[in-house]
Amino acid sequence: MIAKSQKHWIGEVADLLRVGEGFVLSSVDPSSTPGYTNDKAQAAEDLASGAAQLDELQERLYAQSRTGASDASVLLVLQAMDSAGKGGIIRHVVGSVDPQGILLTAFKKPTDEELAHDFLWRVAKRVPEPGFIGVFDRSHYEDVLIGRVRGLASPDEIERRYGAINDFEKRLTDAGTRVVKVMLSISYEEQRSRLMERLDRADKHWKYNPGDVDERAQWPHYMSAYQTVFERTSTEYAPWHVVPADRKWYARLAVQALLLDALEGIDPQWPVATFDVEREKARLAAT
Amino acid sequence: MIAKSQKHWIGEVADLLRVGEGFVLSSVDPSSTPGYTNDKAQAAEDLASGAAQLDELQERLYAQSRTGASDASVLLVLQAMDSAGKGGIIRHVVGSVDPQGILLTAFKKPTDEELAHDFLWRVAKRVPEPGFIGVFDRSHYEDVLIGRVRGLASPDEIERRYGAINDFEKRLTDAGTRVVKVMLSISYEEQRSRLMERLDRADKHWKYNPGDVDERAQWPHYMSAYQTVFERTSTEYAPWHVVPADRKWYARLAVQALLLDALEGIDPQWPVATFDVEREKARLAAT
Repeated sequence: MIAKSQKHWIGEVADLLRVGEGFVLSSVDPSSTPGYTNDKAQAAEDLASGAAQLDELQERLYAQSRTGASDASVLLVLQAMDSAGKGGIIRHVVGSVDPQGILLTAFKKPTDEELAHDFLWRVAKRVPEPGFIGVFDRSHYEDVLIGRVRGLASPDEIERRYGAINDFEKRLTDAGTRVVKVMLSISYEEQRSRLMERLDRADKHWKYNPGDVDERAQWPHYMSAYQTVFERTSTEYAPWHVVPADRKWYARLAVQALLLDALEGIDPQWPVATFDVEREKARLAAT
Repeated sequence: MIAKSQKHWIGEVADLLRVGEGFVLSSVDPSSTPGYTNDKAQAAEDLASGAAQLDELQERLYAQSRTGASDASVLLVLQAMDSAGKGGIIRHVVGSVDPQGILLTAFKKPTDEELAHDFLWRVAKRVPEPGFIGVFDRSHYEDVLIGRVRGLASPDEIERRYGAINDFEKRLTDAGTRVVKVMLSISYEEQRSRLMERLDRADKHWKYNPGDVDERAQWPHYMSAYQTVFERTSTEYAPWHVVPADRKWYARLAVQALLLDALEGIDPQWPVATFDVEREKARLAAT
């Protein structure tokens, strides 16, 4: 069944982009637009229409949690190489939702206190409560991506982490959280062009860091680390989705569609009043 | 000087709505629209235009904090009686800003752990870092509002708190935070009508709580507690603003204008590159 939110898609976006058995990252074309039947000109309209649906679903999700009727929540995990568009997703997709229903966390280089704990310590503190859409801008996956590429932990420890991540995400989903894992996939060439734009514009200089070029030199190692992440942690309960992201408009629509799919799966309902509505009307009218 | 953001206002909004010497809350007409020269039909357009300005100013504020060039931040404190429109302000004014630059906190009934500490303990943990716009949906002022009306603390303790609040806000402003304190003022009649709407619509029942009518019965005591708050805590460095809020469109425009005023006062600048731009272009091009 095609959800009503996906009328301009062929097939379910979640199925199209899901990392399944035998997935090979290098076979994804970052400039492709799988499943979407409209073009860029109409994408803005579809994004606005999706935003209105997301808005109502989020409010229902929040509302039903208030009476304790449901423990459901959503967690969007965003991973990508620099400049792939995580910020744009947060601004244009997450930003269309009432901020009162969002718990956003940008994970930076771990502090000394965070490093003194297990790698999941800081992450576990930021999972969404019932009713919320949590968003991780980077996540525990950094600990098996940069952690592996830069040798920040031993191979044995990296190996242990895949299992720890799966256990952690299983507990989350068992507790009612739909985990939506997204890797935005841009091409090596597109990254060069986006970083160059940051250097070309004085109002974008602050987004550039000389370390970006050093990280870029590790591109093949990162791709290999992502491939392993997909093989080890794309589970039935918390599958990965790889979103081609050279076209920003496509990536935004696709992530919005994945969020809509998760919320439609929850199918949140307005809670039934736990008080006597007519009695309350009379009490209020008397004031 | 009238800021460019305020072309449809007569005078500076911050001046018009500021609580100064001799202010009397009961003299504010909640249905008035002080200073605004357009009508409701044009308010949506002005709100959208203000949102674009807020967006750029927020990004500049964030950008300049990234290089450590400035410690500036903004803290919006929202207080009001139930149904006065705090949620609408957060959704429509705060929600127009990139979520990556917002730190929103909704203060609920204190937990046992919070009650075991001084009343400012939980608040101090949620002040914005440099570059952020912090938003308090309710705040430390609850501790001298419901705290006083419901006798949750002794009169001596309430008395002590006004001074503690002023000291706390002085430290904040000294550290670079512009504190924008807003009380949304609705009329007793308008509150009845809004609560009744929540009872009339099944999709709004979740927003209603029978306790709302009990709180409403304390209306004169709350107004008196607010009056005292204004007299004791509207300081030069962190003044209060009372925003007439029976007309939601006016309240949203006015709070947006207060935020724009605070940001224009900071006048954030794009930071200058701390690296050699031409050298980085060459390094990047070589990849």
